[in-house]
Amino acid sequence: MSKVLPKSIQALAEVLGSLPGIGPKTANRLTFYLLGRESHELQRFAQAFSELRENLTTCSVCQIIAESDPCPICSDSTRDQQKLAVVEEALDVLALEKARFNGRYHVLGGQISPINHVGPEDLAISQLLERLNSNEIKEVILATDPSLEGEATALYIDEQIKSAVELGTIKELSVTRLARGLPVGGDLEYADELTLSRALEGRRSYSQKDQ
Amino acid sequence: MSKVLPKSIQALAEVLGSLPGIGPKTANRLTFYLLGRESHELQRFAQAFSELRENLTTCSVCQIIAESDPCPICSDSTRDQQKLAVVEEALDVLALEKARFNGRYHVLGGQISPINHVGPEDLAISQLLERLNSNEIKEVILATDPSLEGEATALYIDEQIKSAVELGTIKELSVTRLARGLPVGGDLEYADELTLSRALEGRRSYSQKDQ
Repeated sequence: MSKVLPKSIQALAEVLGSLPGIGPKTANRLTFYLLGRESHELQRFAQAFSELRENLTTCSVCQIIAESDPCPICSDSTRDQQKLAVVEEALDVLALEKARFNGRYHVLGGQISPINHVGPEDLAISQLLERLNSNEIKEVILATDPSLEGEATALYIDEQIKSAVELGTIKELSVTRLARGLPVGGDLEYADELTLSRALEGRRSYSQKDQ
Repeated sequence: MSKVLPKSIQALAEVLGSLPGIGPKTANRLTFYLLGRESHELQRFAQAFSELRENLTTCSVCQIIAESDPCPICSDSTRDQQKLAVVEEALDVLALEKARFNGRYHVLGGQISPINHVGPEDLAISQLLERLNSNEIKEVILATDPSLEGEATALYIDEQIKSAVELGTIKELSVTRLARGLPVGGDLEYADELTLSRALEGRRSYSQKDQ
């Protein structure tokens, strides 16, 4: 490739190819696509990259990456102060916002994962427990990933909360976990056995009047 | 999203999402991945974008995008001057280089495609015919895509060459097309019927001594 393609094209294909999920062929195709874009559009790209980290801070309340501290969500008094969704990362907040969750958030910054050398002390768990001290929050929704590490993280946090309640540092509150089951629009036969058995476990009354 | 994510993050996700094959979710994931990269790495990205079009020119011989005119391949006298592979774009040159083609190239800049308003006059066909005037080239390999438009382009060029030979503006030469057939490593049962019938048409003697 070094003989065929100009250095500037190689340079862009190289950085693009360093992105997760983008292999060398895709990087090449994207680079040639970009060659066809106007110069001012390329400048827009350049600017977006160089300014990415500017004006960013971490919200001291919920630990999300934001432009202000506290962030817009924590500053929003119209939200339900009693419900707190504990998530792993900012994109989870985005997802729950789209699902119209109206409570507040706490962003852990990851999940407990021994293989990746991430322990509880590497996540914003102590900050979470401090927030529960104010006793404003009545329900903690453990919205970590429905995966092995996500479950381990949820379990750890639940135990921490239980201990704090026992010690009396926080008042009793409700700890919940998002439902496991069949995704909407799915097909029963394609569901994996674990998901299907959890869907069976979590079955609820069908008729409205029984609820 | 405008309430949740900082402007700089939105800006980068937006430009990334404008790339072909990259949807909003992937754009978000890539942006958050990039948030974890060092500032100097982000600057490398910014620089690659802003410098992409610098120092680029078109080789007046083969029409490839290059840093010099003529390009490194056209300047390479060790290559076989008698074989010319006609391709649609620079990435095809890259592909043939990997396949160890040792002749020279001509880059058309696309394919004849009425739907996309690309006619022969929009491609580097007249420049190709001019190159053939020198009579150095003994074989033209029509290496356009094995698709409808690629075939139409190859057909058009072949007819132009035939006319030029009849008129006497160029000497008789060989015009060839890359073989159609089963890709190496494939599985017969998964081959589509067109490819399979072309593979049958193009069958060759198996035993070495018959060649």
